[in-house]
Amino acid sequence: MTLNKKNTITVLGAGNMGMALAKVVAENGHPVLLWDLKKFLPKQKLPLRMKATADLQEALKASNIAVIAIPSPYLRGLLKKIPKRLLKHEILVNCSKGIEPGSLKRMGQVLEAMTRKSGARIVDFSGPSIANELQKKELTAVTLASHSPQALKKISTLFKNKYFRVKTSSDLIGVELGGIMKNVYSIGIGITDTLRPSANTRSYLLTQALEEMMMLGKVLGAKTETFSGLSGMGDLIATCLSKDSRNRKLGEAIARGKSVAAAQKEIGQVTEGYYAAVALSALARKHRVKLPLLQKIHRILYKKASPKTLFDPL
Amino acid sequence: MTLNKKNTITVLGAGNMGMALAKVVAENGHPVLLWDLKKFLPKQKLPLRMKATADLQEALKASNIAVIAIPSPYLRGLLKKIPKRLLKHEILVNCSKGIEPGSLKRMGQVLEAMTRKSGARIVDFSGPSIANELQKKELTAVTLASHSPQALKKISTLFKNKYFRVKTSSDLIGVELGGIMKNVYSIGIGITDTLRPSANTRSYLLTQALEEMMMLGKVLGAKTETFSGLSGMGDLIATCLSKDSRNRKLGEAIARGKSVAAAQKEIGQVTEGYYAAVALSALARKHRVKLPLLQKIHRILYKKASPKTLFDPL
Repeated sequence: MTLNKKNTITVLGAGNMGMALAKVVAENGHPVLLWDLKKFLPKQKLPLRMKATADLQEALKASNIAVIAIPSPYLRGLLKKIPKRLLKHEILVNCSKGIEPGSLKRMGQVLEAMTRKSGARIVDFSGPSIANELQKKELTAVTLASHSPQALKKISTLFKNKYFRVKTSSDLIGVELGGIMKNVYSIGIGITDTLRPSANTRSYLLTQALEEMMMLGKVLGAKTETFSGLSGMGDLIATCLSKDSRNRKLGEAIARGKSVAAAQKEIGQVTEGYYAAVALSALARKHRVKLPLLQKIHRILYKKASPKTLFDPL
Repeated sequence: MTLNKKNTITVLGAGNMGMALAKVVAENGHPVLLWDLKKFLPKQKLPLRMKATADLQEALKASNIAVIAIPSPYLRGLLKKIPKRLLKHEILVNCSKGIEPGSLKRMGQVLEAMTRKSGARIVDFSGPSIANELQKKELTAVTLASHSPQALKKISTLFKNKYFRVKTSSDLIGVELGGIMKNVYSIGIGITDTLRPSANTRSYLLTQALEEMMMLGKVLGAKTETFSGLSGMGDLIATCLSKDSRNRKLGEAIARGKSVAAAQKEIGQVTEGYYAAVALSALARKHRVKLPLLQKIHRILYKKASPKTLFDPL
């Protein structure tokens, strides 16, 4: 395979999501260069049109479009390591879902701030897309958000195929916020389905979660209707109910009596909701919004509140 | 037990839902008189403060408040049988979820029209409340809708307790419509989870369902935000994902290759979504709204379309 800067796509991060998107893009006919630290690079034979490298410079120089699928706690650190001359991308697709603890910035904002001078256009990727299922080619639909219609068109064309449908939005804040908040509520639903398995209870708390997303979204400038779409309600349901969700597994383990530390160790990978709970609580406080369900989950994770307190009146 | 018109509640319909609500009200300290045809009356010993009768006249004369939990195809027929002098209720609570095929009226509208002269105030009951779970006292939250704040206050007080939470709304159309439409989509999710079990696919179609609810709601005069609440998104999730849902079971059976008729026979009880699919298709046509997912389910139920067509592009 010869890599050609004009049509090659760089994917940063070879975790489940990075791998899933790399496969989709390669299958759609575009050469893909997948980057990660040596120890995280896939051992198996890669599909047609896909190459892997542990050389960040090589990965970034190869393309005009980069997809970023790095766990949010590592995003800023990675961006800091990249020399400015290597960040000359036309479009950066952000898949990282989190809020930075100190600055209270969304990952999309962190990315935007750190690449502003490069002129790259940012596209946020969000929606019900459990990576293992996407890799198995299950019918999946997601939302891409950007202020640039051209960038949306280009990335939609790159991703979409028979089993992968793509909608677009101009509401970057709402699309990204849904993807961040759902991880926290997924921990709550993991607790609920373990301690009080009931379609009624689960639906009640999921509805409360959606309402809280809309409340925080409103003060941050998001459009309310965004949260009833794929990146809001859709992603919330998928993440909360899929057995593959790490955040859900964290809730299940806590409900079975594990300490938060032991539960995280058991899961072994980054559970974004654990970090997001702190930053979202702070963000809600800053904007004087009450998010009672989120705050309960926060107290269970960080203040040793009993998982049973989830069912107290909101 | 002495029945006292001032505090007795009549419940019409001893199906799962009627029985569940009767139990809640009785447990909350109010005498309940449960009516149904003799063959449907419960055989088991009734809880404290609950009595059953097959005498419609006795049931209606006993109270100022009646809860109506009759399958929608039988509601008008039952109301017709009731002499006007017996319909002197202060409040009628409607739990029937359906649209009348010919008139295209919601059950709440049928009830309103047929009891207008009595001066009764109508309260619509909707939300994620699988009856079997409510009977087991699982934590449940629902929405009551009415134009009368007094009626809402009275019925809330009647229902709410430690495991049963109640929200109120003035959007009768939106609250009722969510409860009707979700039954059709539940058939679709039964098909999806049988043919293509995937959190991604299910979340995608559930999001599409919510969007279609909002679209039809908008032209009918409902408030969009109602559909992201308990009676919309909440009820949709509960009904679509609960193994107890008859509509879901209908979808599962069709997906396994059963004819619609054989599947209905197997289930044995009224599957509201089967009837609602026709009326909602007609309502959408009348108001020139496109509901692609609903129309696919309609074609599967009535036009022998293959269940697999559900996954064709919308």
